[in-house]
Amino acid sequence: MNTGEYSDFKAGLLEQLSLLRSHIRSGAYTATTSGKAQSLVQGNVVILPADWANDFLLYCQNNPVACPLIGVSQVGEPSLPGLGRALDIRTDIPEYQVFRNGERAETANDIRDLWRNDFVTFVLGCSFSFEDALIRAGLSIRNVEQGRNVSMYRSNIETQTAGRFYGNMVVSMRPFRAADAIRAIQITTRLPKAHGAPVHIGDPALIGITDINAPDFGDAVAIGSDELPVFWACGVTPQIALENACPPIAITHVPGKMLLTERLNEELAVL
Amino acid sequence: MNTGEYSDFKAGLLEQLSLLRSHIRSGAYTATTSGKAQSLVQGNVVILPADWANDFLLYCQNNPVACPLIGVSQVGEPSLPGLGRALDIRTDIPEYQVFRNGERAETANDIRDLWRNDFVTFVLGCSFSFEDALIRAGLSIRNVEQGRNVSMYRSNIETQTAGRFYGNMVVSMRPFRAADAIRAIQITTRLPKAHGAPVHIGDPALIGITDINAPDFGDAVAIGSDELPVFWACGVTPQIALENACPPIAITHVPGKMLLTERLNEELAVL
Repeated sequence: MNTGEYSDFKAGLLEQLSLLRSHIRSGAYTATTSGKAQSLVQGNVVILPADWANDFLLYCQNNPVACPLIGVSQVGEPSLPGLGRALDIRTDIPEYQVFRNGERAETANDIRDLWRNDFVTFVLGCSFSFEDALIRAGLSIRNVEQGRNVSMYRSNIETQTAGRFYGNMVVSMRPFRAADAIRAIQITTRLPKAHGAPVHIGDPALIGITDINAPDFGDAVAIGSDELPVFWACGVTPQIALENACPPIAITHVPGKMLLTERLNEELAVL
Repeated sequence: MNTGEYSDFKAGLLEQLSLLRSHIRSGAYTATTSGKAQSLVQGNVVILPADWANDFLLYCQNNPVACPLIGVSQVGEPSLPGLGRALDIRTDIPEYQVFRNGERAETANDIRDLWRNDFVTFVLGCSFSFEDALIRAGLSIRNVEQGRNVSMYRSNIETQTAGRFYGNMVVSMRPFRAADAIRAIQITTRLPKAHGAPVHIGDPALIGITDINAPDFGDAVAIGSDELPVFWACGVTPQIALENACPPIAITHVPGKMLLTERLNEELAVL
């Protein structure tokens, strides 16, 4: 496309985003953002008090595949200008999960009442960005086809500890036939800021998953007898590290219900 | 490395090559070239009468993953200057396979007596180039470790017909644990002129291989219970097409006993 067409393309996406964001802000939209505002980057979110932020920043640095940082806010600032001019982290996620002392406490559609002047927001890239790339390459993604949330599992793959944060990796799974699995590895390699290439392929038991039909987060999908399950590091991983670190308060997105940004997925791609 | 070091590096390799080539020319070396003259490109070879050459050229064009052309000779010329200044296709392969009317006839260590003024030589990239890249990336290749020829199988993957040439793809197999298989896909993607990324991973039956322990060419290797067989298109594929096309005469290398060239593997890499 030429420059004019590109401007129109991005303007059209931002218009779609604006409409969806208004529904999220009003509390009318509380579902998964899978397949929504395609072409725009979605993010995993972790909000922490400032005295927990340095440890968490190091945790992301140590575990860039599970925790590919794409944005960090100023202390107390609900904006993330690098990810969107109009973005307000207190209202722009369909459903928030509040953690208190490492335990999942209430959920909320809006966290303006919980906001604190010492909060720091971390945004991590998300597999929905590479799902968009896979679909554009002609691959069919089971959970998107079936309108379900992606299947996510607690694996036995250890992450690298940073201060008080530690724990095993959460992985997302998509089944593919072998040739498409190979193509998916090539395509997602281009997107290190959206978890990059898979971390495992084939036998789920080898990474500590005992029942592939019972995901720990999201929905189960069918796997054909001619298909391989393909596993990517997942941005829910830091929620396990939060359970272990036990900060007095932390706020995340509910798995699958992501922050919509104003960046294009293709802006995250290398090569 | 700097320019001087690079010159020394390449000069050292060419010196090794020169020694090995003299053993091949004298008939003293007739074994597999796997693991030999590492860093230098090795090639699959098909020699045909000129009136069969156009069909075969189109067959390679139609099937670039199995038949990645890296050199074609002038009619009647035993030299391939693009692949090496000192190269003589009549003497520089450890063991030749002669096909007569599509059937494997005699083998030979030298084809000077069989040479004809209408012969055209085709050289195709070879998986040994990517084995070198995999080893440099720290991966362990079972057949190289065990000093065996790679396992090769007739698959049920159809190639695209060109004139009189048709048939199913031959694949080579290397077992890897999942994380290494993913890494191997990334690394071999960079080498389209050495068959590029795998064509299959996992269940051999899905590509028509009924007994993984009984390769059609080369040697069997053990596959661990935590490993996946990974399959690449193989330069033995045109030998099947030769069996089908039935030219009165054709000469190839014996699988695993390749043409050594003066090109660096890294010269074939993209990205």
